[in-house]
Amino acid sequence: PQSKLPDVGTTIFTVIGQLSAEHNALNLSQGAPNFSCQPALIESVTKAMREGHNQYAPMSGVAALRHALSAKVEALYGCKYDADSEVTVVASASEGLYCAISALVHPGDEVIYFEPSFDSYAPIVRLQGAKPVAIGLSMDDFSIDWDQVASAINNRTRMIIINSPHNPTGAIFTDFDIERLTALTKDTDIVILSDEVYEHVVFDGERHESMACHPQLAERSVIVSSFGKTYHVTGWRVGYCLAPAELMDEIRKVHQFMMFSADTPMQVAFAEALADPQSYLGLADFYQQKRDLLAEALSESRFELLPSRGSFFMLARFSHFSPLTDDEFVLSLIRDHQIATIPLSAFYSNNKPTGLIRLSFAKDNDTLYEGARRLCRV
Amino acid sequence: PQSKLPDVGTTIFTVIGQLSAEHNALNLSQGAPNFSCQPALIESVTKAMREGHNQYAPMSGVAALRHALSAKVEALYGCKYDADSEVTVVASASEGLYCAISALVHPGDEVIYFEPSFDSYAPIVRLQGAKPVAIGLSMDDFSIDWDQVASAINNRTRMIIINSPHNPTGAIFTDFDIERLTALTKDTDIVILSDEVYEHVVFDGERHESMACHPQLAERSVIVSSFGKTYHVTGWRVGYCLAPAELMDEIRKVHQFMMFSADTPMQVAFAEALADPQSYLGLADFYQQKRDLLAEALSESRFELLPSRGSFFMLARFSHFSPLTDDEFVLSLIRDHQIATIPLSAFYSNNKPTGLIRLSFAKDNDTLYEGARRLCRV
Ligand SMILES: CSCCC(=O)C(=O)O
Ligand SMILES: CSCCC(=O)C(=O)O
Repeated sequence: PQSKLPDVGTTIFTVIGQLSAEHNALNLSQGAPNFSCQPALIESVTKAMREGHNQYAPMSGVAALRHALSAKVEALYGCKYDADSEVTVVASASEGLYCAISALVHPGDEVIYFEPSFDSYAPIVRLQGAKPVAIGLSMDDFSIDWDQVASAINNRTRMIIINSPHNPTGAIFTDFDIERLTALTKDTDIVILSDEVYEHVVFDGERHESMACHPQLAERSVIVSSFGKTYHVTGWRVGYCLAPAELMDEIRKVHQFMMFSADTPMQVAFAEALADPQSYLGLADFYQQKRDLLAEALSESRFELLPSRGSFFMLARFSHFSPLTDDEFVLSLIRDHQIATIPLSAFYSNNKPTGLIRLSFAKDNDTLYEGARRLCRV
Repeated sequence: PQSKLPDVGTTIFTVIGQLSAEHNALNLSQGAPNFSCQPALIESVTKAMREGHNQYAPMSGVAALRHALSAKVEALYGCKYDADSEVTVVASASEGLYCAISALVHPGDEVIYFEPSFDSYAPIVRLQGAKPVAIGLSMDDFSIDWDQVASAINNRTRMIIINSPHNPTGAIFTDFDIERLTALTKDTDIVILSDEVYEHVVFDGERHESMACHPQLAERSVIVSSFGKTYHVTGWRVGYCLAPAELMDEIRKVHQFMMFSADTPMQVAFAEALADPQSYLGLADFYQQKRDLLAEALSESRFELLPSRGSFFMLARFSHFSPLTDDEFVLSLIRDHQIATIPLSAFYSNNKPTGLIRLSFAKDNDTLYEGARRLCRV
């Protein structure tokens, strides 16, 4: 029998990670820190394990964590999610996205998403027998052309997937985006799936436009976020979904069979960590310094840097000095300069060359300096 | 829009767990130990975290764990799985099952499975737009009627899901089962999805019939197993899939989007644990003692106990002294006797009353004694 995903290969993060290791390259590709989390967080997990929190957590998540999340979201964004029926702990944002799409998108439905995009959205939609409808972001500033969205919406449109701060471009939602999204979806059945894993990484004093800030959007939204990006532990697989109870009921029906429950001791540790808002409120400054350090260190390079307003990522243009495709250029960087990045083309369903690469600045400062040094030699 | 799983409610394990907590009942329902894992295992996780194994693991799993699994499976069952292309670490057996079905079952396909069955199989199949075909196990000894399987197979049959040792009945596959399954599937495209999470819990000196013991079956099988059941840590979400590379390629395409990777420090710890075969080879004796203890303690009860040849479970008949349905009877046990069990009917798609309940003996001996004491009062 043929593949259910005939056009899908191995995810770009694995491909580049392997190439990077083979060529002993410095890795500015994946959005995974190469520095440590707070030692206290490790001690929390250890304590939880020693205290015996090692068996299945409740399917919806450890109660203390659901309550801590509910309180945090209300304090930060205003929306009140019931800890029992509207908050579910999942085993990574990836699982949350997979669950939400599986639970809510029917065969024949259409799902609008924006390209460049994280590479899982379209394949997950396709696995439901539904149609992913890609809308290209502006190549100037990666803004959304809402008129194009308006004309893409029809009575088969079941979901719009958004992601702010945006991986891979670093764009963030504006007041205008919120206004247009609200107008276009009100009085419809359209669900907004909002990937907010970089919610605490918004720069230059701007604010994160969570769906949970906007009641008219929150009522039709599934918000997915994660602890891995916030606490520098991308390998501890715990994320969460927030949604009105009637959507959450459906998501839990799938989650209970997909994962049953997320890691127990780590849930206990994150519940403790959330008690201190400084554990996440300082993250924007932390990463802004890294963004600025990398940009400064690259100022003498031939790359043209595009503005990053949030996330762990910055785009760099090479097309004015190299005729290579994104893939070829990234390969040459790994081979000839021992520096790994992600070709922006990998975030497009048609893999079209863009003349841009994605740099991750979720790295310690020495790695950023050394990475910039190598990129300056190009 | 309607639900994609209109007939599915909350999983029985959650429903009974909540009822049990509300009534302060002793819990013999879920197959989750109430005792501790080896302290060394906790120290391994702690060490891994302190050494910095906290970021994304490779999508297919930590290399040391894949190699340890490959070596273990070859030593125990004879089949050689290539650690790079035929072993994938997933974030629980649940995820492994969900991934394998999602990757391999197309809309319109049929999937044969046996009832009573673990409650996730049929809904996952249905979510693919495929048809779950239930074949009832014999109500005498829970054996498979292979003639019935033969007549259920047609050219839409894409997969047969098996599970030995069997949850919820404690039945295990025999030589005869292996023979018939081999004969029925050879020269077909049918994939065998083999849920082997209780592989180390086979009693009375019998051997576990892994698909990896039988080359003709292994070549068409996806084996799913897990560390949670083997190391008494059901809340640490790490499992694995074994399959020939061409099937594994498809499974990984889905896994990379469903979870990307499983928990890193726990993978490192399980790789260390596997180095000592005693860590799993003693499990059968350990649980056999618990089975025997519970059976002995229940010998004066009104329940008729059915033989358990493997798994954490034993069935107990009540129909000769109570006219209640399984659900009613289980509810009365929780309310009136503060003891939680699972109605066998929950493992049937039509929820048909069977006059049987499932007891989990994955509990410390005091709990088993006290549970038996309460059941003897019925
Ligand atoms: C599983 S990759 C998750 C996102 C990320 O880290 C990246 O885009 O690099
Ligand atoms: C998620 S429940 C897993 C299986 C089990 O523990 C049970 O059947 O009780």
